Amino acid sequence: MTSFVFRRQMTIEWGHCDPAGIVFNSRFFEFFDHSTWLLFDAVLGVKPPELAPAYGIMGIPLVDARADFKKPAKFGDTVEITSWVSEFRRSSFDVEHRITIAGELAVEGGETRVWAAHSKDDPEKIGAVAIPTEVIVRFG
Amino acid sequence: MTSFVFRRQMTIEWGHCDPAGIVFNSRFFEFFDHSTWLLFDAVLGVKPPELAPAYGIMGIPLVDARADFKKPAKFGDTVEITSWVSEFRRSSFDVEHRITIAGELAVEGGETRVWAAHSKDDPEKIGAVAIPTEVIVRFG
Amino acid sequence: MTSFVFRRQMTIEWGHCDPAGIVFNSRFFEFFDHSTWLLFDAVLGVKPPELAPAYGIMGIPLVDARADFKKPAKFGDTVEITSWVSEFRRSSFDVEHRITIAGELAVEGGETRVWAAHSKDDPEKIGAVAIPTEVIVRFG
Amino acid sequence: MTSFVFRRQMTIEWGHCDPAGIVFNSRFFEFFDHSTWLLFDAVLGVKPPELAPAYGIMGIPLVDARADFKKPAKFGDTVEITSWVSEFRRSSFDVEHRITIAGELAVEGGETRVWAAHSKDDPEKIGAVAIPTEVIVRFG
Repeated sequence: MTSFVFRRQMTIEWGHCDPAGIVFNSRFFEFFDHSTWLLFDAVLGVKPPELAPAYGIMGIPLVDARADFKKPAKFGDTVEITSWVSEFRRSSFDVEHRITIAGELAVEGGETRVWAAHSKDDPEKIGAVAIPTEVIVRFG
Repeated sequence: MTSFVFRRQMTIEWGHCDPAGIVFNSRFFEFFDHSTWLLFDAVLGVKPPELAPAYGIMGIPLVDARADFKKPAKFGDTVEITSWVSEFRRSSFDVEHRITIAGELAVEGGETRVWAAHSKDDPEKIGAVAIPTEVIVRFG
Repeated sequence: MTSFVFRRQMTIEWGHCDPAGIVFNSRFFEFFDHSTWLLFDAVLGVKPPELAPAYGIMGIPLVDARADFKKPAKFGDTVEITSWVSEFRRSSFDVEHRITIAGELAVEGGETRVWAAHSKDDPEKIGAVAIPTEVIVRFG
Repeated sequence: MTSFVFRRQMTIEWGHCDPAGIVFNSRFFEFFDHSTWLLFDAVLGVKPPELAPAYGIMGIPLVDARADFKKPAKFGDTVEITSWVSEFRRSSFDVEHRITIAGELAVEGGETRVWAAHSKDDPEKIGAVAIPTEVIVRFG
């Protein structure tokens, strides 16, 4: 069973790069975050700002993020970002991201997120709740 | 009558800089924003996250920002940021920011902000409201 | 005589937004910077990282930036950014940027940049040099 | 044998936070990067921009970054970042970062970096080189 894969292309901007002329590491985590929102939009057909209200949740906060930098991305490079959910658990899931430049792997990233809602007893509290089966099914 | 002046020093970080080895312009607007919060904290004695609730407002949103870049700031530079309110009007005010490096002017910036509250009739609406006299008095 | 106008559309990302749920001001200056590079690419047919070597310059550093925020841009909004050079002077020029959301003006921004080169006598020094006539002509 | 530990305190800024009112994940990687530079400065007595020339290297590029987010950091929070090198290998090393808020662990992060130099045969090439023993010794 394969999961839905979301792809996008983007161009590395001057403002993404550091004095070494390559993308500063924190930017990749911005790219990953946005790709995750776009992946959910593509699979569920729900625009990013509608995701939380559509499922009665607070959001899909990140609990773990990681990246391996294999090759630098430089100003002006066209990068392709491929993103998919590699595993759904009861109330958390893993998103994998691969960034390639001209077909060569540049960055391998990953995120672990939770399906989180405000507690009914104490709206100040946020906790992980079960991911709806229909969501998991849609991802294939 | 002179207005209260807030000063802080900071070090230019690797991640603030672009491939030319100097601070990327958008970072200065981050520096200005934070200095404005610190200026209000210093003058009013109200921590930044408490400012809105303390005065029953939504916040002090920016309506105009500007910067003149006189000299570049480089990785590792110690910069001093001096900030003050140059004018209060009924419901808006101007904050000026000067960044110096080793005593030399590097950037002159400015912000215009409004004292904004949710409308009593329609909480979805946000509008400028009169700045309390006590706030203006505190700034000198 | 009208100048060439560059348009692009982009989606406001979660990471662009602040706790008020709207784009944090410094992000607009990132958007402007990238649009200026894309405008030069579109007009001169030179990819951003090739601009400096193609014209024997060090770059087109910013000496002034400004923005008026008319309406907030929110997470998920599709914005259109329109950019053009409003004036060329001997060695500096002004770029104007307009951001609209659903046809309504949200932000008006501007940049002043210089056509800058390393000094022949002292490569450590950077100074403004005359903008080639062919560049100005290409912009119309 | 314990490694030198570098600590700094910082305040979470408005611009660090996302619409959920908490620090956007990519910002933590900015915090880690700056702490690593400060750690090296503290241990080696070499200012960040002097590190590469002092050791004849190109820099200490990141090859892996990771973070576990245990508790959110909010606007106005004072965070303490503790950083140390957990392992030196021949030409690479690991930096660990712990962020606490009021004594409670909020984020655990890590970076793997290489001691990198331009190749003598081909200055366009960058490769990992042996970390000087004196550097490792200084870290304890």
